[in-house]
Amino acid sequence: MIILMRENCPKKAVGRVLGQLRRRGLGARLISPAPRTVLGVVEEMAPALIEELTGLISGLESVEAVEPFGASWKLASREFKAEPTVVRAGGRGLGGGELAVVAGPCAVESREGIIQVAQGVREAGAHFLRGGAFKPRTSPYSFRGLGEEGLRHLAEASRLTGLPVVTEVLAVEDVPVVAQYADVLQIGARNMQNFALLEAVGEQDKPVFLKRGLMATLKELLLSAEYVLAKGNPQVILCERGIRTFEPETRNTLDISAVPILKRLTHLPVVVDPSHAAGKRELVPALALAAVAAGADGLMIEVHPHPEAARSDGRQSLDLEAFGRLMGFLEPLARLTGPARAGLLH
Amino acid sequence: MIILMRENCPKKAVGRVLGQLRRRGLGARLISPAPRTVLGVVEEMAPALIEELTGLISGLESVEAVEPFGASWKLASREFKAEPTVVRAGGRGLGGGELAVVAGPCAVESREGIIQVAQGVREAGAHFLRGGAFKPRTSPYSFRGLGEEGLRHLAEASRLTGLPVVTEVLAVEDVPVVAQYADVLQIGARNMQNFALLEAVGEQDKPVFLKRGLMATLKELLLSAEYVLAKGNPQVILCERGIRTFEPETRNTLDISAVPILKRLTHLPVVVDPSHAAGKRELVPALALAAVAAGADGLMIEVHPHPEAARSDGRQSLDLEAFGRLMGFLEPLARLTGPARAGLLH
Amino acid sequence: MIILMRENCPKKAVGRVLGQLRRRGLGARLISPAPRTVLGVVEEMAPALIEELTGLISGLESVEAVEPFGASWKLASREFKAEPTVVRAGGRGLGGGELAVVAGPCAVESREGIIQVAQGVREAGAHFLRGGAFKPRTSPYSFRGLGEEGLRHLAEASRLTGLPVVTEVLAVEDVPVVAQYADVLQIGARNMQNFALLEAVGEQDKPVFLKRGLMATLKELLLSAEYVLAKGNPQVILCERGIRTFEPETRNTLDISAVPILKRLTHLPVVVDPSHAAGKRELVPALALAAVAAGADGLMIEVHPHPEAARSDGRQSLDLEAFGRLMGFLEPLARLTGPARAGLLH
Amino acid sequence: MIILMRENCPKKAVGRVLGQLRRRGLGARLISPAPRTVLGVVEEMAPALIEELTGLISGLESVEAVEPFGASWKLASREFKAEPTVVRAGGRGLGGGELAVVAGPCAVESREGIIQVAQGVREAGAHFLRGGAFKPRTSPYSFRGLGEEGLRHLAEASRLTGLPVVTEVLAVEDVPVVAQYADVLQIGARNMQNFALLEAVGEQDKPVFLKRGLMATLKELLLSAEYVLAKGNPQVILCERGIRTFEPETRNTLDISAVPILKRLTHLPVVVDPSHAAGKRELVPALALAAVAAGADGLMIEVHPHPEAARSDGRQSLDLEAFGRLMGFLEPLARLTGPARAGLLH
Repeated sequence: MIILMRENCPKKAVGRVLGQLRRRGLGARLISPAPRTVLGVVEEMAPALIEELTGLISGLESVEAVEPFGASWKLASREFKAEPTVVRAGGRGLGGGELAVVAGPCAVESREGIIQVAQGVREAGAHFLRGGAFKPRTSPYSFRGLGEEGLRHLAEASRLTGLPVVTEVLAVEDVPVVAQYADVLQIGARNMQNFALLEAVGEQDKPVFLKRGLMATLKELLLSAEYVLAKGNPQVILCERGIRTFEPETRNTLDISAVPILKRLTHLPVVVDPSHAAGKRELVPALALAAVAAGADGLMIEVHPHPEAARSDGRQSLDLEAFGRLMGFLEPLARLTGPARAGLLH
Repeated sequence: MIILMRENCPKKAVGRVLGQLRRRGLGARLISPAPRTVLGVVEEMAPALIEELTGLISGLESVEAVEPFGASWKLASREFKAEPTVVRAGGRGLGGGELAVVAGPCAVESREGIIQVAQGVREAGAHFLRGGAFKPRTSPYSFRGLGEEGLRHLAEASRLTGLPVVTEVLAVEDVPVVAQYADVLQIGARNMQNFALLEAVGEQDKPVFLKRGLMATLKELLLSAEYVLAKGNPQVILCERGIRTFEPETRNTLDISAVPILKRLTHLPVVVDPSHAAGKRELVPALALAAVAAGADGLMIEVHPHPEAARSDGRQSLDLEAFGRLMGFLEPLARLTGPARAGLLH
Repeated sequence: MIILMRENCPKKAVGRVLGQLRRRGLGARLISPAPRTVLGVVEEMAPALIEELTGLISGLESVEAVEPFGASWKLASREFKAEPTVVRAGGRGLGGGELAVVAGPCAVESREGIIQVAQGVREAGAHFLRGGAFKPRTSPYSFRGLGEEGLRHLAEASRLTGLPVVTEVLAVEDVPVVAQYADVLQIGARNMQNFALLEAVGEQDKPVFLKRGLMATLKELLLSAEYVLAKGNPQVILCERGIRTFEPETRNTLDISAVPILKRLTHLPVVVDPSHAAGKRELVPALALAAVAAGADGLMIEVHPHPEAARSDGRQSLDLEAFGRLMGFLEPLARLTGPARAGLLH
Repeated sequence: MIILMRENCPKKAVGRVLGQLRRRGLGARLISPAPRTVLGVVEEMAPALIEELTGLISGLESVEAVEPFGASWKLASREFKAEPTVVRAGGRGLGGGELAVVAGPCAVESREGIIQVAQGVREAGAHFLRGGAFKPRTSPYSFRGLGEEGLRHLAEASRLTGLPVVTEVLAVEDVPVVAQYADVLQIGARNMQNFALLEAVGEQDKPVFLKRGLMATLKELLLSAEYVLAKGNPQVILCERGIRTFEPETRNTLDISAVPILKRLTHLPVVVDPSHAAGKRELVPALALAAVAAGADGLMIEVHPHPEAARSDGRQSLDLEAFGRLMGFLEPLARLTGPARAGLLH
C-alpha cells in the first residue's frame, strides 16, 4: 500500500497515518521525503484489511491518495509524475526533448584506446561515453575487464573530453568504487532482477542506467526501476536492448514497441541500444534511426576504432567513420520527429 | 541444384545440360524461361553426386553458375538480382525508392463503409486500398467476411478512388475469383507455409503480398517467396507484421530488424504492418515512423471510420483523422531517410 | 453463439429458436444434426444483443443451453462431452485408456522400404503406420514425396501388416485421393490454421490427426479442431510436436504440459510426437517415456531401417532395434501410469 | 585455455607450465588443486598464440590435456568427469541413481507452519525440505520473507525431521548467514547470471542448487555452474524450472528435453521443479511423473498445508494429501524407469 501525502503537509498528519497503521501492527517505510511525503506499507495484508485501511486512511487530513496495490509499480508511473524526468549527469541531461547519444567501446582495453575513442565519438557529436571496466561474462574463463584500472582510464578520458561516463557495476561490493569514478551507474541486462544490486544503486546519488533483461517483460523492467526509486534515487534511465526470440538472424530481437509503450507508462527517459540487440554492425544504423523515429530519448551505440581487433563484441561495433555518418542523420531526424517524441502523435 | 544459364544462350546448350542430368537419372524443371534460363534439379542427391555434377555442369558451354544448394532460396536473393524489384499494380509501384502506403479496414463490412474509407484514405494520401473479403478466423464461429460480395464492393471503391486493391485469398479454390477483382493477392500470416496456395498464386499474373508467419524466421519467409517466384511470378512483396514472443503489452512483437535484414538479403520490396503487430492503435504512429526510418518500402495500416464499431480488430485501427495526421509526418520522414532506404547507410 | 437443444427435441422447437433469431436479422447454421441438435449463430453481435438473446432463447422450450461465446471452442470441450473420445480407424482405437503407437518413416521412399519398416514396427508392437507421400517442404527445391505412388505403397504395406495408415494431406485438392488410400488424414503443423483444408477434412468420414503449429497456443489448436468438428467429423486426434523457443539444443521444445492441459480441456485423444520436437534421435526415448507418464494417449515416432540413409529427417529417426527397445519399456510404463491417464491424479 | 595435469604430478611440472605462460606475459589461475591440478588461463589470446601455446604445453611432462576453448564449460562436462556426481548434504545424497524429492512451501511464513509442513512431507517420503527465508520479488513492495528468523525456523524444522534444508540466497552479503543455517544454497532463476553471487557460493563448502533462468539456454546454465565449479566447489545441482514462451496456459513451459540433454552433457545431478514451471497445482503430478520418466535425479515440489492461505505461490502448491498421493506413484515409477535414468536408453 502506497500513501501519498499532500505537499508540505504538517508532520502531525504523517504521524496520524503512522498511528493508524501501528494499531494494526503495521509499519511504514518512507518512500520519498518532504515536501511530498510518500509512505509505503510493505507487509502483505488480507484483502479485507486493505479495504478497511484504504477507506480509513483516505479520510485522514492531508492524505491525497491511497493506492492499495500489491505487485505493481508506482513511483515510475506517469500517474505519479506527469512531466518527463530529465536525468542529469556530468553537466548533461538525458530525457525531456533533446536526443542524447551514449557511445564507446564494449570494454575498456587500454588507456590509449579509450582516450582515442572518447575523442572520436565526441568529435562526431556524442554526449556520453560508455565503456566497461567490469564485464559480465557468460563463461568464467572469458576476459572480465580491467576493473578499477579501467575505471581510472574512463575518468581520464572523461576529463579530457568533457563526456560524462556510463559504466556497468556488477556486484554490490563494487558499487562504491564504480560510483567514485563514473557519472552514471549501469545495471546490465543479466542483473535486471538482482534486487540487492538495485537497492545498492538506489542508495547512491548517481543516475542509474537500467537495461532490460533478455527475458523481461516491460512491466518487470518498470518494477526493477521501482526498486531503485523506492530507495530514494529518482534518476533512472530505462534501456531497451533486445529480447530473446526464435529468430536467428539477429542476436536478439529489438523490441521497438518498447519505446512508445514505456513513454506512455512512465516519466523516465527511454534509451535504445541497437548494437547489443542486433549483434551485427551493418544493422545498427537502420535500428538507430528507427529508435529515434519511434520516440527514444537516447541511443547507446558501441563504437570501436578497430572493431575487428576488439576483445569483445567487435562484430557489432561501428568504427568511428560509420558512427560519424550515422550522427549526421540523427540530428535532422530527431528534429523532424520531435513532435512524436513530445507525445503529440501518441 | 540450380543451374543458371547465360543470357540468350543457345537452346543446344540447355539441351547439353539436360543430357548430363538424364544420364544420371535426373530431370530438371524450368524455373525461369529464356532469355535468362534457370533450371532446377529437385531430386535430392547424395553429396558425392552433387559434387561431381557441380564440377561437370559448371564446365559446360553457356553455363554461368551452378548452385548446389538444398534448402535455400535463390530467385529471391540479391545475388541473383541486384537491383530492387518494383512491383506494379493498378498503375502504382511499390519498391525502389518511393514510400507506398496501403490503408483500409480489416474487413469489408458494407458497400458504403468501404467506399467511405477508401475516399478518406485516398484524400490523406494513401496509395493502395486494403480490406478483407475472406477473413481467416481462429474460431470457426467468428465473422468470416462477405466473400465475393465484399470483393465487388472493393472493386467499386477502387474504381471510384483509383486506389489499387490488396486483399487476402485464403484457399486455392478462391484464387480465380479473388484475382478477378483484386490488384494484389495477399497471403496471410497463417498461410505463409500453405505451399499449395503459394504455388497457386505463383501461377497468376497478379502481384503477391506475402505476410510473415507469426512463427516464421526470415529465411522461411524468403523460402515461401521462393515458392511463388519458382512458379514464374516475379512480383512478390514481403510484409513484416510481428512475431510471437513472451511480451504481453503488444499482440505481437514488431521485428523491426527484419527491414534492414531483408533489404540486404533480397531485391523484393519490404512492407511493415504496424497495426497487426501492435494490436493497439496508440502504438501505430510510432511504429510506422520507425519502419520508414528503418528503410521499409511501404506500410500497411488499418484504418476504420469508426474503429469502436468495427466488426474485427477495431482496437488497432486508426480513425481517418489520426491516419491523416500520421501521413503528414511520413512524407518528410521518407525524404529524410531516403538515403537509408537506398542502401547508403547499410 | 451456440445453442444446444435437448436430445430428440421436436422440430418445432428448433423452428421457434430460428424464428427468434430471424426477427433480429440473424441466421443460424446447423453445427450438429438430430438427435442432439446444435445451432451456431456466426454473426458477431453487440454485447447488449447477446445478453438479450441469451436470456430470451434460454427460456424457450427444449433449449438445453445457450453459450454466448465468441472466439472460443465448444464441440471440443469437456463440458460439451465428458467421456473421452475413442477414434477408430482400420479396426484399431486411439484414446480412452490404451496406449497407441504410430510409427514409421518421415517419407515413403520406395515400395520395399515402407513394407520393410511396416513389418519391423509391427513386430515391435506398433499400432499404426505413418509415412509421408506428400511432404511439406520449407524450400520449393526439396524432395516433396512420391505423391499418389507413395500412397499406393502405404496401402500395400497396410494390407500386409494390418496396420492402419496415418499420412499427411497438404492441399484441399488432394483430400479425395489421400482419403482413398489412408485410414487417418494428418494435418501438419504448418497447416494447423489452413482453415480451408480443415473444413475439407471435416467433410470426410476419416479420422483427422491434427498437429499443433510450431507457435500455436493450445487454445488455437482446440479452435482448429473445432473447425473439423463443426463440419460434422467428430474423429479428431490432437498432436503435440514441439513449439519454437530460444533454446537451440533441440529443434523445438516439446511442451509436455500440453498433455495434462489438453486432457483437462478436451475429450479428444492427445498424442505426442517426440521425434519432430527433439530433432535428435538420442532424446526420443526419454521424451517418449515422459509423454506416456504425463498421460498421453499415444505416441508418433519416426522409425527408419537405416536412418543415416534417409532422404529426410534421418537425424531424428530411431532404427528398428532402438524402437523395439523403447517399446519394451512403454507397455509396463503405460500400465503403471494408467491411473494418471485415466484422470485419477489430475 | 584449460590445462589438465596428470594426477599426482610433481609440483615442478606445474611450475614448468606456469613458466611457459609467464614468458608470454600470461598468468594462470588454479581451477582445481592437487591431486588433479587444473589450471586456467583467463586472458584472451590471439588464435595464433593459442595454437602455439597448445602445441608447446601439450608437449610438457605431466600435462594430460590442453583445452584451447574460450566461451565453453569444462569442469561440468561429461568429458571431464564421466561418472555421475552425487551431491551429499545433511546425510542424504542427490544424484547417481536414487530419486530425491525436495518439498516444502514457497516461503517460510511462521515457525509452526514450517514445522508442520516439514513433518508432513517427511511422512509422505520427501528427502529434503525447501522453504524461502529471503524471497526475490519482482516488486519492491511484495513480501520478501522473514530473513534470518526464517532461517532459524528452517533449521529447527530440519532438526525435528532430519530433512536437510534447501533455501535461496539472494545477495553476496547474505551468503555467510544462509550457509550457517542451510544444508544446500539455492541460486534462483533470476540470479543465474549474477556472477558475483555464483563465485561467492563457489567459495562455500555447501552444495549449490542452481536454477535455470527463465530464458537461459542450457549452455548458459552449464556455464553458470562452471562459475561455481571453477571456484573449487564441486557440489552443484542443476534445476530445470520452465522457460518463457508464448503459451499462456502455463506460467512457464517446462522444458522436459532439458533432462536427457543435461544428463548427456554433464555429470551433475538434474532436478525438475514442476510447480514453478506450471504455476497451477493440477498440472504438477503429471509433470512430476514425466520428469522422473525422462530421467531426472530429483524433483522440487511446492507443498503447503493450506495452499489457499499461502502468502505467495499458493496457486501452484499441493496440499499434503495430494503430495502423499503423488509420492505413492513416484517410487514404482522411478524403479521402472531406473534403467533409463542409468543411461541405458539414451
